[in-house]
Amino acid sequence: MTKSPMTTEEREGGSVFAPKFDSAGLLTAVVVDHGSGDVLVVAHMNAEALQATLSSGTVHFWSRSRGQLWMKGETSGHVLNVESILVDCDQDALVIRATPAGPTCHTGARSCFYRQIDASGGDAVLVKLPT
Amino acid sequence: MTKSPMTTEEREGGSVFAPKFDSAGLLTAVVVDHGSGDVLVVAHMNAEALQATLSSGTVHFWSRSRGQLWMKGETSGHVLNVESILVDCDQDALVIRATPAGPTCHTGARSCFYRQIDASGGDAVLVKLPT
Repeated sequence: MTKSPMTTEEREGGSVFAPKFDSAGLLTAVVVDHGSGDVLVVAHMNAEALQATLSSGTVHFWSRSRGQLWMKGETSGHVLNVESILVDCDQDALVIRATPAGPTCHTGARSCFYRQIDASGGDAVLVKLPT
Repeated sequence: MTKSPMTTEEREGGSVFAPKFDSAGLLTAVVVDHGSGDVLVVAHMNAEALQATLSSGTVHFWSRSRGQLWMKGETSGHVLNVESILVDCDQDALVIRATPAGPTCHTGARSCFYRQIDASGGDAVLVKLPT
């Protein structure tokens, strides 16, 4: 028997976790610092990365540039330890609260979001935030 | 003369805003509640939605399902007033701090992220967060 497709009501209001991957097989994952509440990194997960994250308790992504599973911090040691995971209404995005073992950004910054857009002078320019 | 492509150093360390859209012409935008710091919604912007957001001060997305520019709150009135915008290292994702004029989620929830994944019992299930 074929399983009935999920209704919008079930998808948005139910307790069944049915992650919705896009045409490339990916969903968006936003990692938030459990301590400060700041957004640390935004990246993508395929089903394998999501499963690895859920089973290991450390954040795994799918690297679109390298085309491979990527445990965040696998070379630097700066892993992201999962505290909790939220899913959005249509189940195509996750917010992961995590405790980072070191700087999250490969540039050495605590967060990948270390510059603010200043559009006050017409053309938008980037201003580094105080670290 | 052709403009030289941006180096990685310029992209990651510079002050030039050069948003990097994916093959579908989109980047990821994470909207955070300026008051509480909670993630409210994750959606996508094309160049037009980004420009509209910067020039109007209210968040605009590109609706992938409807294939059109979408001012968040255009029908509900629950617009998102931009307080500040951060960009990540490779400039393909934004974090927008905004003050919401009402519930952000179309379900009526304050945030689209109103359910938490509970994977403690083997199969992952969703648990509604207290509102």
